[in-house]
Amino acid sequence: MAKDLFRSAARKKQTLFNAWLMMNNPLAVELIGDAGWDCVTIDQQHGAGGNETMLSCLTAAKAAGLPAIVRVANNDPGLVGRALDAGAQGVMCPLIENVAEAESFVQAVKYPPRGNRSWGPYRAKIGASGDYFKTANRFTIACPQIETKGALADLDAILGLKGVDMVCFGPNDLSVALTGGIDIWAKEVLEAGREVLAKAREHGVMTLVFCNDIDFAKPRIKEGWDVVAIGTDTGWLASAAAATLAAAESTS
Amino acid sequence: MAKDLFRSAARKKQTLFNAWLMMNNPLAVELIGDAGWDCVTIDQQHGAGGNETMLSCLTAAKAAGLPAIVRVANNDPGLVGRALDAGAQGVMCPLIENVAEAESFVQAVKYPPRGNRSWGPYRAKIGASGDYFKTANRFTIACPQIETKGALADLDAILGLKGVDMVCFGPNDLSVALTGGIDIWAKEVLEAGREVLAKAREHGVMTLVFCNDIDFAKPRIKEGWDVVAIGTDTGWLASAAAATLAAAESTS
Amino acid sequence: MAKDLFRSAARKKQTLFNAWLMMNNPLAVELIGDAGWDCVTIDQQHGAGGNETMLSCLTAAKAAGLPAIVRVANNDPGLVGRALDAGAQGVMCPLIENVAEAESFVQAVKYPPRGNRSWGPYRAKIGASGDYFKTANRFTIACPQIETKGALADLDAILGLKGVDMVCFGPNDLSVALTGGIDIWAKEVLEAGREVLAKAREHGVMTLVFCNDIDFAKPRIKEGWDVVAIGTDTGWLASAAAATLAAAESTS
Amino acid sequence: MAKDLFRSAARKKQTLFNAWLMMNNPLAVELIGDAGWDCVTIDQQHGAGGNETMLSCLTAAKAAGLPAIVRVANNDPGLVGRALDAGAQGVMCPLIENVAEAESFVQAVKYPPRGNRSWGPYRAKIGASGDYFKTANRFTIACPQIETKGALADLDAILGLKGVDMVCFGPNDLSVALTGGIDIWAKEVLEAGREVLAKAREHGVMTLVFCNDIDFAKPRIKEGWDVVAIGTDTGWLASAAAATLAAAESTS
Amino acid sequence: MAKDLFRSAARKKQTLFNAWLMMNNPLAVELIGDAGWDCVTIDQQHGAGGNETMLSCLTAAKAAGLPAIVRVANNDPGLVGRALDAGAQGVMCPLIENVAEAESFVQAVKYPPRGNRSWGPYRAKIGASGDYFKTANRFTIACPQIETKGALADLDAILGLKGVDMVCFGPNDLSVALTGGIDIWAKEVLEAGREVLAKAREHGVMTLVFCNDIDFAKPRIKEGWDVVAIGTDTGWLASAAAATLAAAESTS
Amino acid sequence: MAKDLFRSAARKKQTLFNAWLMMNNPLAVELIGDAGWDCVTIDQQHGAGGNETMLSCLTAAKAAGLPAIVRVANNDPGLVGRALDAGAQGVMCPLIENVAEAESFVQAVKYPPRGNRSWGPYRAKIGASGDYFKTANRFTIACPQIETKGALADLDAILGLKGVDMVCFGPNDLSVALTGGIDIWAKEVLEAGREVLAKAREHGVMTLVFCNDIDFAKPRIKEGWDVVAIGTDTGWLASAAAATLAAAESTS
Ligand SMILES: [Mg+2]
Ligand SMILES: [Mg+2]
Ligand SMILES: [Mg+2]
Ligand SMILES: [Mg+2]
Ligand SMILES: [Mg+2]
Ligand SMILES: [Mg+2]
Repeated sequence: MAKDLFRSAARKKQTLFNAWLMMNNPLAVELIGDAGWDCVTIDQQHGAGGNETMLSCLTAAKAAGLPAIVRVANNDPGLVGRALDAGAQGVMCPLIENVAEAESFVQAVKYPPRGNRSWGPYRAKIGASGDYFKTANRFTIACPQIETKGALADLDAILGLKGVDMVCFGPNDLSVALTGGIDIWAKEVLEAGREVLAKAREHGVMTLVFCNDIDFAKPRIKEGWDVVAIGTDTGWLASAAAATLAAAESTS
Repeated sequence: MAKDLFRSAARKKQTLFNAWLMMNNPLAVELIGDAGWDCVTIDQQHGAGGNETMLSCLTAAKAAGLPAIVRVANNDPGLVGRALDAGAQGVMCPLIENVAEAESFVQAVKYPPRGNRSWGPYRAKIGASGDYFKTANRFTIACPQIETKGALADLDAILGLKGVDMVCFGPNDLSVALTGGIDIWAKEVLEAGREVLAKAREHGVMTLVFCNDIDFAKPRIKEGWDVVAIGTDTGWLASAAAATLAAAESTS
Repeated sequence: MAKDLFRSAARKKQTLFNAWLMMNNPLAVELIGDAGWDCVTIDQQHGAGGNETMLSCLTAAKAAGLPAIVRVANNDPGLVGRALDAGAQGVMCPLIENVAEAESFVQAVKYPPRGNRSWGPYRAKIGASGDYFKTANRFTIACPQIETKGALADLDAILGLKGVDMVCFGPNDLSVALTGGIDIWAKEVLEAGREVLAKAREHGVMTLVFCNDIDFAKPRIKEGWDVVAIGTDTGWLASAAAATLAAAESTS
Repeated sequence: MAKDLFRSAARKKQTLFNAWLMMNNPLAVELIGDAGWDCVTIDQQHGAGGNETMLSCLTAAKAAGLPAIVRVANNDPGLVGRALDAGAQGVMCPLIENVAEAESFVQAVKYPPRGNRSWGPYRAKIGASGDYFKTANRFTIACPQIETKGALADLDAILGLKGVDMVCFGPNDLSVALTGGIDIWAKEVLEAGREVLAKAREHGVMTLVFCNDIDFAKPRIKEGWDVVAIGTDTGWLASAAAATLAAAESTS
Repeated sequence: MAKDLFRSAARKKQTLFNAWLMMNNPLAVELIGDAGWDCVTIDQQHGAGGNETMLSCLTAAKAAGLPAIVRVANNDPGLVGRALDAGAQGVMCPLIENVAEAESFVQAVKYPPRGNRSWGPYRAKIGASGDYFKTANRFTIACPQIETKGALADLDAILGLKGVDMVCFGPNDLSVALTGGIDIWAKEVLEAGREVLAKAREHGVMTLVFCNDIDFAKPRIKEGWDVVAIGTDTGWLASAAAATLAAAESTS
Repeated sequence: MAKDLFRSAARKKQTLFNAWLMMNNPLAVELIGDAGWDCVTIDQQHGAGGNETMLSCLTAAKAAGLPAIVRVANNDPGLVGRALDAGAQGVMCPLIENVAEAESFVQAVKYPPRGNRSWGPYRAKIGASGDYFKTANRFTIACPQIETKGALADLDAILGLKGVDMVCFGPNDLSVALTGGIDIWAKEVLEAGREVLAKAREHGVMTLVFCNDIDFAKPRIKEGWDVVAIGTDTGWLASAAAATLAAAESTS
């Protein structure tokens, strides 16, 4: 099994910086690894590509030494299993509404007896030392998102599920749920974030937070979230393209 | 035929900003167009992908309203013809060593009687108004690079060739040729750039300059190059990824 | 936001001709746009390709100036959301059996408060003017298919759902349901079609009809369906290939 | 319709050897056909690739004269229908838990009146003689896997479902279910296998067994399973690569 | 070795109808085969795609039972060898200017002693009976195009080269060469065509003619060209799309 | 710059085992790395795929910790430069006929002043420590093949060229040249091999030999070639598939 960066950093209270990939281009993955990011999320909910793209990005992530989480489009055990078999360490599930959905998600991530993941780690087992079947449940990461009212309401129960290894706080969808618009700085959202962080710590569950930008990220880093995502590859590219053009156009 | 942005901007002395694509990802092309860039170079010398990738980027460029130049890997008439048939407005050829190579390149770009481009604009003719065969030579752009000692020596002859519509000044390779290392700010390079610009103007040939960064670009913009490229998509992405990470890591 | 051709044409009672894509080849999409079709359906139920293919066809459709509907394979919110985020204006859902399924489909298409589409329009927002979150629900199109007995039985309820912007009448599957075989000219099918059209008008819901051929299409055009699909790209290609061959073989 | 090798061989009690594809590379498919295998399983549960990959492998299988079964990731009617429309003769569904799931799977495979497969065999109909709609249900193969405790418990009921044309015995997942670990030679597993084979024969249902290696396969061949899979393409490649290297390293 | 349809049909004086592929989509290849065409030209001079695309179309052609010729972009031995190794029976080379170029092309097609094709038929040998090295030169087809003034002037010499198995008459480029415009009906072009056909017969060289449409094809069929191409896949699709739309728009 | 395994192993007289890739599937690359091979040759002369495929295999090779050589289709500086920029450590050129061709090849591999490789290592520079321009010529590997009579005749001159870092002995093509057929065990071939090895050692040039099978490889390993390739990925897969099938068919 590869080194478990997520759990070892969490134990050492080292923040991991997670690059969020929507473009899902393998060369971009390697460039981002070269820039120093610690790990990646391959987004197959709000990003580009299907299974072929996911595989190529997982390969690029391995080439760059970056452990990877795949966000699946929805709570579908087929998608979850395929991400893990393809070599994702973690799977993130959006829009979890309640503890029952979280439980069903965890079952898709974990082998029996905890869950019902089916046997066939065709790529995941490459380079895995030891007995993959016996060690996988300790290595893989089930990461439900907390971004709905329902998930907030069931927060303790969700965090209490054995096999919920990490939670991802999603401020955008949650702000829509709580305020009716995109407003990640809304008081309710910030408060929910603090609650998620505090309770996750109590349960010994790792925490990941998506931050739209560095301003939102800085307080999160100080709060001690285990994994912090800041913007996305498409956002970085678009901003840098725009900034370069603006500098050029201001030439006089 | 689509609007000829390159020639119309040149006539109006409006600088066009050209996004240089090495990643050659179609989604990135659309993001860059959305950021306001005027046109693109799809680099198939120092960038990713073959014919399939080129086609997908030409399609994305059209979706984004961006006219496109393809840089071919070398002076190969097969590559030149395929780029044009696929819908590139211009083709750039690196490492031209002398006027004979430039002539051969122009012949690959232009239909008879000027050249020997073969008939078959399977995608280029889509949306082209009028008679593509008769109008193509006035629309397409043959753009040899001036980046070798030989090309500098033959500069007047190259610029004097009918059908050389644009030249691209390549300061990196030229700096290697003139100084033995990568040094685009070397006196010889800057001087060569000024000569290329001045002589191209005399010959009524459009000018494109590749600038590694905004600092190199600003003086070029002031000098009045018709088309100015500043950095590359991979560079933008890498820089933005690094800058975001640095800001995050400096949090305390 | 791009121009809303579907709604503006419907308001003006202008028939839109929709090219139905099963081959899902981006070059074919551009050729079809060049032939004058108004819009496309990218069929991911009975056509080729996954997310990568869908993206490349959406890009080609944009290049050709064609608004696009994606037909998803089934009523899966992950597929629905991914089609919209990738830039489809509309999503079509096959085999809706009742109003509950239609409601669930609409929720996947629309942002809160109407639905529960998740935030992340990574490509859809490119070129969108204004606030995408606030305007998207008015621009996107939820298009359930009416092609089962159940959907016919629940027709009024389905059409009455806020957010059902368009319905697609599917005569093939419906003929199987009503007659036990493929017979789009069966009396029951034609009658159902008239009912769908009439009731949709009452509810102010746009109408799309798939026609196997021009003979079936002509009466539909006269009846005033808003969007009329006639055959498919694979059918066109196969017919033209066969007709050319037949003409050649008849040479004597 | 293509020749129905599965049913004709079963009638003649000829064992078919099935190559199990996880790499899902079309060239590999042709090489495997050239090596003499009779048919293939394109695994999209524990193997690589999405719809594009499946299509390319189905095409390669046809080129190699190999009928194909697609294993879908889970019991999703969209995936099932897409595999059939793309030209798979059979679809295999993993992890069936009970007769209700099997029934739902069969309905996805079969056209009405037996099931609710939707009309649109865009590639499946290529080369099909006669009326595809009328003959498809007799040609296509619904193959639920028997690899859970639930499926074993409902075995008679599953085998008794009209339209269950074949069952696939999956010893790996079943061994996990029955013994808590991967142990295909466990007494319980072997016994379950014998029961599946015997009861399937009683019901006139074809039988497929996945064997991890030739040792497990030999007794299965003798028992008379209709279709026998032995290892996987990735396993063959890895073993051959390792064996060649070992031979080289042992040189002295 | 597969059946040699080209030579057996030529011997029997049966016209083969060749589908010319510019879109180079594998599904389209199968549809075209299903429509009854005898063989295909995969155009990599004026059509889409690189090596990956060529491979997928060669596989689809095999699936459809269609022998395939690949037109390479130019007289490049790397491209020629790769097309043959990938399983093309024939290679067509455009724009041959003289007998020396034809000789060099033939050498790229044929193994020693006739030529210098390099050993490595990684896909071509699949299904080949007997000793591929010994039989390949009799099976493969070197097909230079006669479409320049130079090739016409060297016609006898080119046809006299051992290993020139077929020539392709290209009326479009030749009309440009002879008349300055695209005019395949020009007297000079028609005359050149007759000369190519007559002389090829004298030399026992097979003949292929590209016809823009059925009107140009009918006289060619009567003249007895061995292989007749009529239009292209992109042309068929575009025409059928336009005709369907016109019929729809004329509804009143 | 990555670790230079080729040169360090050669210095230590450790044989490197090189996996020869014709299938060029990235997952296969990782499986082969996992099987213990030391390095790979991505064959783009007699193997599958273009630039996209090469990139994906280079990425997979990096993920598997395998340095990579790319064999280009022919002595084309565009192909050579693109392989290096994409991150291949070495480039192999087939069919070198004389020292002039070798010199031209070396120039394509090396930056000035030795050669004329153009600046733009868009992927090669990822992870490279230090100044890529200054160190690249010492890291990259120009590997002409010795497989023609001409190359044998010019052997000393070729080996004496500064920048010829490695030679690859190709017994198949050479046997055709020397004996008229494929016979790698022919006396002339074996003798030529010994000469190449001996002279390369004198010149301090690394040596790579392609061996069709383990029987041919064992004597080569004993002779001390620096890098030994034994068979190919397609051959391994085909053999293992055939062997498994034979074992199954022999069951009684
Ligand atoms: Mg969210
Ligand atoms: Mg340069
Ligand atoms: Mg339907
Ligand atoms: Mg299983
Ligand atoms: Mg031509
Ligand atoms: Mg060789």
